Amino acid sequence: MSVQTQENETRRPDSDERFADALRRADTVAAELRATAAQRDRANKTPRAEVELLRRHDLLQVQEPVEYGGDGLNYAQAAQITRRIARGDTSIAHLIGYHFAQTRIAPLFGTPEQAEELSRRNAERKLFWGGVQNPRGGSDLILTEDGDGFRLNGRRSFASGASLGDHLSVTASYEGELVFLALPAGREGFRTLGDWDNIGQRLTDSGGVVFDDARVERSEVLGSGPLTGRTITPYQTLVTPHWQLAFVNFYVGTAEGALDEALDWTRLHGAPWETSGVDRATDDPYVLQAVGEIRSELRAAALLADRAGDALQKGLDTGPDLTEEQRAEAAVAVYEAKYLSTKVALAAASRLFEIQGARATTTAYGFDRHWRNLRTHTVHDPVAYKAREVGDWTLNRRAPEFSLYR
Amino acid sequence: MSVQTQENETRRPDSDERFADALRRADTVAAELRATAAQRDRANKTPRAEVELLRRHDLLQVQEPVEYGGDGLNYAQAAQITRRIARGDTSIAHLIGYHFAQTRIAPLFGTPEQAEELSRRNAERKLFWGGVQNPRGGSDLILTEDGDGFRLNGRRSFASGASLGDHLSVTASYEGELVFLALPAGREGFRTLGDWDNIGQRLTDSGGVVFDDARVERSEVLGSGPLTGRTITPYQTLVTPHWQLAFVNFYVGTAEGALDEALDWTRLHGAPWETSGVDRATDDPYVLQAVGEIRSELRAAALLADRAGDALQKGLDTGPDLTEEQRAEAAVAVYEAKYLSTKVALAAASRLFEIQGARATTTAYGFDRHWRNLRTHTVHDPVAYKAREVGDWTLNRRAPEFSLYR
Amino acid sequence: MSVQTQENETRRPDSDERFADALRRADTVAAELRATAAQRDRANKTPRAEVELLRRHDLLQVQEPVEYGGDGLNYAQAAQITRRIARGDTSIAHLIGYHFAQTRIAPLFGTPEQAEELSRRNAERKLFWGGVQNPRGGSDLILTEDGDGFRLNGRRSFASGASLGDHLSVTASYEGELVFLALPAGREGFRTLGDWDNIGQRLTDSGGVVFDDARVERSEVLGSGPLTGRTITPYQTLVTPHWQLAFVNFYVGTAEGALDEALDWTRLHGAPWETSGVDRATDDPYVLQAVGEIRSELRAAALLADRAGDALQKGLDTGPDLTEEQRAEAAVAVYEAKYLSTKVALAAASRLFEIQGARATTTAYGFDRHWRNLRTHTVHDPVAYKAREVGDWTLNRRAPEFSLYR
Amino acid sequence: MSVQTQENETRRPDSDERFADALRRADTVAAELRATAAQRDRANKTPRAEVELLRRHDLLQVQEPVEYGGDGLNYAQAAQITRRIARGDTSIAHLIGYHFAQTRIAPLFGTPEQAEELSRRNAERKLFWGGVQNPRGGSDLILTEDGDGFRLNGRRSFASGASLGDHLSVTASYEGELVFLALPAGREGFRTLGDWDNIGQRLTDSGGVVFDDARVERSEVLGSGPLTGRTITPYQTLVTPHWQLAFVNFYVGTAEGALDEALDWTRLHGAPWETSGVDRATDDPYVLQAVGEIRSELRAAALLADRAGDALQKGLDTGPDLTEEQRAEAAVAVYEAKYLSTKVALAAASRLFEIQGARATTTAYGFDRHWRNLRTHTVHDPVAYKAREVGDWTLNRRAPEFSLYR
Repeated sequence: MSVQTQENETRRPDSDERFADALRRADTVAAELRATAAQRDRANKTPRAEVELLRRHDLLQVQEPVEYGGDGLNYAQAAQITRRIARGDTSIAHLIGYHFAQTRIAPLFGTPEQAEELSRRNAERKLFWGGVQNPRGGSDLILTEDGDGFRLNGRRSFASGASLGDHLSVTASYEGELVFLALPAGREGFRTLGDWDNIGQRLTDSGGVVFDDARVERSEVLGSGPLTGRTITPYQTLVTPHWQLAFVNFYVGTAEGALDEALDWTRLHGAPWETSGVDRATDDPYVLQAVGEIRSELRAAALLADRAGDALQKGLDTGPDLTEEQRAEAAVAVYEAKYLSTKVALAAASRLFEIQGARATTTAYGFDRHWRNLRTHTVHDPVAYKAREVGDWTLNRRAPEFSLYR
Repeated sequence: MSVQTQENETRRPDSDERFADALRRADTVAAELRATAAQRDRANKTPRAEVELLRRHDLLQVQEPVEYGGDGLNYAQAAQITRRIARGDTSIAHLIGYHFAQTRIAPLFGTPEQAEELSRRNAERKLFWGGVQNPRGGSDLILTEDGDGFRLNGRRSFASGASLGDHLSVTASYEGELVFLALPAGREGFRTLGDWDNIGQRLTDSGGVVFDDARVERSEVLGSGPLTGRTITPYQTLVTPHWQLAFVNFYVGTAEGALDEALDWTRLHGAPWETSGVDRATDDPYVLQAVGEIRSELRAAALLADRAGDALQKGLDTGPDLTEEQRAEAAVAVYEAKYLSTKVALAAASRLFEIQGARATTTAYGFDRHWRNLRTHTVHDPVAYKAREVGDWTLNRRAPEFSLYR
Repeated sequence: MSVQTQENETRRPDSDERFADALRRADTVAAELRATAAQRDRANKTPRAEVELLRRHDLLQVQEPVEYGGDGLNYAQAAQITRRIARGDTSIAHLIGYHFAQTRIAPLFGTPEQAEELSRRNAERKLFWGGVQNPRGGSDLILTEDGDGFRLNGRRSFASGASLGDHLSVTASYEGELVFLALPAGREGFRTLGDWDNIGQRLTDSGGVVFDDARVERSEVLGSGPLTGRTITPYQTLVTPHWQLAFVNFYVGTAEGALDEALDWTRLHGAPWETSGVDRATDDPYVLQAVGEIRSELRAAALLADRAGDALQKGLDTGPDLTEEQRAEAAVAVYEAKYLSTKVALAAASRLFEIQGARATTTAYGFDRHWRNLRTHTVHDPVAYKAREVGDWTLNRRAPEFSLYR
Repeated sequence: MSVQTQENETRRPDSDERFADALRRADTVAAELRATAAQRDRANKTPRAEVELLRRHDLLQVQEPVEYGGDGLNYAQAAQITRRIARGDTSIAHLIGYHFAQTRIAPLFGTPEQAEELSRRNAERKLFWGGVQNPRGGSDLILTEDGDGFRLNGRRSFASGASLGDHLSVTASYEGELVFLALPAGREGFRTLGDWDNIGQRLTDSGGVVFDDARVERSEVLGSGPLTGRTITPYQTLVTPHWQLAFVNFYVGTAEGALDEALDWTRLHGAPWETSGVDRATDDPYVLQAVGEIRSELRAAALLADRAGDALQKGLDTGPDLTEEQRAEAAVAVYEAKYLSTKVALAAASRLFEIQGARATTTAYGFDRHWRNLRTHTVHDPVAYKAREVGDWTLNRRAPEFSLYR
């Protein structure tokens, strides 16, 4: 990207300009996605074209350094991209949000060389990362030694983007301890099950995967030295709020997009109620009140999401010396936003129909996908426990214990 | 149906026994419907087989006199049947609920002879009634004179069961006044558009219909004497709460069925949360609280629905001398239940996922259909106006003005 | 009470008539209480005159047999009296509700002779019972042997009506086991602390009490035989739902009374909002909606409370053979109503101000007492645990374990 | 105020330091107010000492220029002071919040000379302003000519701080048009009725006032030229969001203070529930969840309040050229926050008791004052209409029409 100055010379855009430009590209992509979202939702295909769209608009590498070909955005800024994309299509926001989080794992857990090398490749090749991380579901991935490398065996479910990823971010268990792997696609012994058919987030390619004696090189295991006996630092445990911040932002963006859509539709198609005493649906007192309430609540949720991004970024910027207390502050800020955005976005997605009325329930509009998308993802982990973790910190200064959910 | 007495003689079942037996038949049908509801929801076909199921279990004619082959149930009892069916399939409950209402129009607006004749036929032939009533959507049906009969022209949308009905209950406009018609199926000039494809209530066959110069006999117009200058009595305006009571009951039944389904699923498939400190999902404190809250609220909604049924039935039992005030009492009781059941059922259908967790979002389970069904029908008419009508009666003793929505 | 028949002869009223008459007396008392409730709330005096009012209207002995001078009402009917009184004054409803529960302890835990004797005295002398039961607060009452009788020592808080009671219902600990005592007032060594000054339920005389080596006769300990090693039967554990049903009814009655008061006030004093476009507050769309919503929710809560009363009464009517399962059904029905009435009544008490507007906040009206009364008593025991108990029964058929709270 | 630099020299604090210092002073005052808030609430006296406290800590003149002795804070910053004070005492926050708004009227409606002169006096004499503005209540103030000046006659209610004000900000009607007056205290013919005794905001000195032929000089009428035929500019109509922003901030601050108080109390006095399975109330799962939810919602409300302050300040900074659209953006931002803070703060004030439990209802703690304060002020104008105005702008770009409420 370049900026035309008044003197007609070209200079490199500064940081703010790069962020603004990335947001504009995201808005463009969101508009394109929205136009076909309902139809693609019904088709339930692997979102290959959609990932290409993200790539074509240079959105995959926004976090990588400018010198490698990225935009040098920080994670809080990347989360804003996720929110914008969600206004057009929640599934694709899910994919890019996870991707942004996956590509931050190497800086947290890898050696500087590993991080550097992956970052360069991400930018140059505009790599899309899938994830094989979800620890739920009664199965696991086991890493065992094999000569100078390793073998990986097991199954996982909810592996978003795994069939499309140019690279995969994988968590595995090595002698009972958690290790992070970064694997290029196409590894022999790896296959995806293509079994994702859920009521929402249908385009997230989140089916199950299998590793069947797949070879893993030592260099693909993040970090140096022995794989056991490692201490995970508070800084490294910031990995979890990365995902959670992505969730927050695609919840908020989804509801923002749904509100816009519903208002556009209502201006065009809304019919006044027979006893409302007004000529247009847009003058109905209850419609106006509902719009005002939803608008206010979404605004508040968006602000809380912004604050969460700032808090996490502050933790990241502090770096490896981050204390337990500082980690808790960052994580809890994200979990406050998780609680609120879940509640507010779900309610909006359902309530918008009361503004629009009966004709908005036609399948062709696909307005139900917002609730289905939100309902599906908001049970990723139970939000009651997020509220509880916020409460525990507020009341007892007891920090959320680290896991891939906290 | 007959009852085996202790002395091994057969006697005719009494009124309570007939009601109990009809409820049992409804439960049987509901169980059968539930087993395939998710799959049929996806198929979006005309519910021909489902209507046959209702017919085969003698549920269509429960309101008709015993001597004609019915069960002699009153309308409040029929509404209980609707609720039971909704536990298995909301769409089919919608169809039978509307059918029960349509078949009560002749007693309200027809001559005693018309009512008698239709009642006899309903019972003997186990007729299923579709409806062409919805006055919304900017189009209307116009009845004009043609020799000793009439011609009917126009379009309607949301005509539930119209393509399947053995008989159709139709409202039309004759010289600007509302008239009720009872037409046998297959009338020349009538056709259904088959355009119903909505996010919920998918099996309700609720597409548009066209009457194109269809002949209507005088005997098919309910009531005697001239068609204009008629006074609609408070008793006759009870027609509207009939539909609204059906709605209330299929909202409540849907949520009851959804709760049962969710609990069954949770007992079988629920997984405890990693930080819950319990071994089974069914011991999770937040799960238990949510179940208790939903259970309590649904119970309250069901009781309010029962009260609404009793109030409407009391009005019906009062007969043609019903006063304006008595009509208002009946209608407002139904609208109280409409407001509450809408709120409670919608919330339950969404919240149940929080009890079940992420794996319940698999499309194959089809658990989202409950919210989709409820969301679709609960915007039939804006519930804010129902609350307003209750408030207006409570605060000002101002009765809901009659329309096909009030 | 007697009934004048058409033939001008006097006959004894039947059961329904006695109940109807008791309700009328309750309504009379409620009206009298309401007129001065705000003022008495501020004065925070011991409710001596109010208890006399209950006595004068023969409300204290409604549960006792007709032959002794009572009305022979069952407990579910007595709970309706409590609800009516609450429409006038929540504190006094609390007192009579507890009184009705206390006087049912002897039939549950006493010998037939003890029960009979107390019942007769209750009716003849129109005794008012206070209670010394609340097991919370870190202190307890210890009963120890002393010759042919006992000595009672310790403190209790929240002892409603204890300073006014003609008789006291006391729970104590004897060798670590729970025993129930029935003590006449004025026992040497007993004193009340007069320290009740709370934000709500101010007229409930619920301060602390002290027993200082007070003599207790064997006959004043309910039940026969040894005091230890007793088995408490499911039937006896119905003691706890008695109180909880009283709570439910005074929550519902309070909100009903508050709604009536608010509507009366609004009709008289309400002012239309400047941009409402209407001439009277009573025509405001948001006011009407709020009234309708509150009215519907209170109605549902009242129905659930009625159902709870019926369920408990069914358990009581079953008698000593009551099974664990039957006890659970009764208790859980009460706890469903407890959850819902808490939520609905609290919300109504706060929201009514939005109907009335700013001028209703004048202290002289005392409209805030409804929220204060409800807020104070609804934390008697945490309602989250009641929802949990309902959920545990619904999901797991695990019955609430008996305690004085469950 | 001065800042000690490292070199031990004194320099004038910069703008950020002055703001930080003012916030510290506000926190100090809030702490002092909180310690006695419950007790002063009961006493219901005129808050003379409290206003002196504000004056003593140099909080009254924070908005005035540094050169006159103020801190040069802008209005958004002053609103933060209001929020801090509300954490200690909502009534006093109400007084200072209104005061901050009143002292901004001269810059909006006065001549530059009037504004300058009043600003200088405010700072030098640390004047406290009361207000006589509320246009509700069926009475009004009429200004009529009298020689070279005017006479003022009439009554007003809800005149906060009027009996204590060193200066009064008054709105009056001159030939049917709105004029703003700035009157020094003690004007002959003016008297306060001392009739404020409401359920909340008890220390706001908000009783009625009477002007009985009080003399008003021309210089005390803001603005130059004729008093009729004036056009009110969009910039001037920002006067209304000033008050509304004050409300928002004292709602949020009140709830923040209430939460802090409740948590402190719970840590000290909370008792675990008998079936919670935990040893301390602070480990109870439902307590932790409630704390987390309330904490998250208050945070969001505070962020929305901050955004509202920024939006209003942006409008003020734009100055007299402000367009209608820009005015609407500022006002609607404030009204979004008004809706949300009303809902969230009221809910928190009531729900906190569920964290604390029964013993927190003791009158001596006075925890109910938070709900009473919020309930009283949140009906100042109906919040449903604020939601409606937000909706109307969002859906229709129809700006709130100016009045002293919009």
